[in-house]
Amino acid sequence: MRISVIGGGRIGEDDTDLAHRVGRLLGAHDHTLVCGGCGGVMEAACRGAKETGGRTIGILPGDSAADANPHVDVPIVTSMGNARNVLVVLNGDAAIAIDGAYGTLSEIAHALDFGRPVAGIGSHDVEGMAAVDSPEAALEHVESAAQ
Amino acid sequence: MRISVIGGGRIGEDDTDLAHRVGRLLGAHDHTLVCGGCGGVMEAACRGAKETGGRTIGILPGDSAADANPHVDVPIVTSMGNARNVLVVLNGDAAIAIDGAYGTLSEIAHALDFGRPVAGIGSHDVEGMAAVDSPEAALEHVESAAQ
Amino acid sequence: MRISVIGGGRIGEDDTDLAHRVGRLLGAHDHTLVCGGCGGVMEAACRGAKETGGRTIGILPGDSAADANPHVDVPIVTSMGNARNVLVVLNGDAAIAIDGAYGTLSEIAHALDFGRPVAGIGSHDVEGMAAVDSPEAALEHVESAAQ
Amino acid sequence: MRISVIGGGRIGEDDTDLAHRVGRLLGAHDHTLVCGGCGGVMEAACRGAKETGGRTIGILPGDSAADANPHVDVPIVTSMGNARNVLVVLNGDAAIAIDGAYGTLSEIAHALDFGRPVAGIGSHDVEGMAAVDSPEAALEHVESAAQ
Repeated sequence: MRISVIGGGRIGEDDTDLAHRVGRLLGAHDHTLVCGGCGGVMEAACRGAKETGGRTIGILPGDSAADANPHVDVPIVTSMGNARNVLVVLNGDAAIAIDGAYGTLSEIAHALDFGRPVAGIGSHDVEGMAAVDSPEAALEHVESAAQ
Repeated sequence: MRISVIGGGRIGEDDTDLAHRVGRLLGAHDHTLVCGGCGGVMEAACRGAKETGGRTIGILPGDSAADANPHVDVPIVTSMGNARNVLVVLNGDAAIAIDGAYGTLSEIAHALDFGRPVAGIGSHDVEGMAAVDSPEAALEHVESAAQ
Repeated sequence: MRISVIGGGRIGEDDTDLAHRVGRLLGAHDHTLVCGGCGGVMEAACRGAKETGGRTIGILPGDSAADANPHVDVPIVTSMGNARNVLVVLNGDAAIAIDGAYGTLSEIAHALDFGRPVAGIGSHDVEGMAAVDSPEAALEHVESAAQ
Repeated sequence: MRISVIGGGRIGEDDTDLAHRVGRLLGAHDHTLVCGGCGGVMEAACRGAKETGGRTIGILPGDSAADANPHVDVPIVTSMGNARNVLVVLNGDAAIAIDGAYGTLSEIAHALDFGRPVAGIGSHDVEGMAAVDSPEAALEHVESAAQ
């Protein structure tokens, strides 16, 4: 599966740890991680995914692939700013959300609008998505819901 | 001001009435209404705005201006599907949300992410936006917050 | 009709004069001018159109409506950079090209790809578009071809 | 390097052979092929690249990764129609064009507008791009020009 990991570019230590664990889990389960390619949640998750042998795609807001975090295998530049949020979730079969910024909320909403299952850990609470408390529970939810 | 009116394309009688009243109010206060150009909330709001002499812009998901509802003065086609939601709120100085579909939530989130004030009537409850109970209260909120 | 006027943002005196005359002609014939909203060809054409009572739409690469040239009636911001070129020609029933920059060529190609008639004055010479030598000939071509 | 291979979705036998040879060459030289992900030039080039161990990225106009040709390693869906042409060339360090359709011309123009070197084989003749007569000459041009 391709799983979008969505979350803000500026996060605290706890969310960094959480994102890192989500990434490690996705890599270990042979999923491809899709994200916005920047720092914060995106970088921590990509770093985790690469540690466990996963693949990572970063769909960037700007026009320079060099802006991708160092753990992105396939950077895709868009020059579309935050309009690229739509592409981040459109390119996943499901999404896992971490933290509560507005950009994250827009991605949750687009994902649900496209019929993608969404699990959130310490994120927004939107009807139709699953609020879970661990990376393992998030993965279990999206794997079963996406089938 | 330009005010984005955001809400679903398929709505009930109550939301149609509400959107119509929002549109009438915007026209009467000489604001330009920006919306997604389709039916439902968008059509009812545009109809109201035209009744009171307002101007309406519809930013459409498809590639045919003929798909705009009949009360859109300036149809803008995008061929971008729901990615055009970003443009709907980017082109307003503030946003008023009606109803609770996911597309609407994505627009609320993008609007807040861009720093636009948002008022919602019977819509999602997102931190940072104002939940109000009438078109008049919605307009009052966005007019004062956008200054 | 809506007619896209396409051309570069940095042009010489002759092209400025040409664009101004195209704009005056469109306004006089009650057409709506669609352009990229910036300076150069876009500004000169919009200025002309407003002098003869026309309407002007500017689809901007950035996210600030204040960047539109002063003769744009309806600025549409996109935050999409040059990807907005596609929208400039998608929103016209036909296109008139002035000058020979690459951005202009991309718009000519997208217009032809969408089946829009294109006339060029001192612009690129692409099979399928009409190379003409005056604003009047350009308008005559696109008016007859778009029917 | 990442090299965009641009060309139409409906082509004859000669262009199919040419695209296939370009793809084989890119794979053999360890370049990543970026294309629009569909049939015709895109499919033949991707097929060639995979035969020689290359990597392929397909940036699709629609919203279903299943629409990618079978030789695309990383499909990126956009739901943006032909506006995705911009992304195809923005994601390459250089471009090689085959055939002469309008979509191809739009990509050549965007590539040159972004400062990407472009080589064309039996394609449009645009000032600033190199018209060459073989896949080998095309690769030699873009490799040296992109440095």
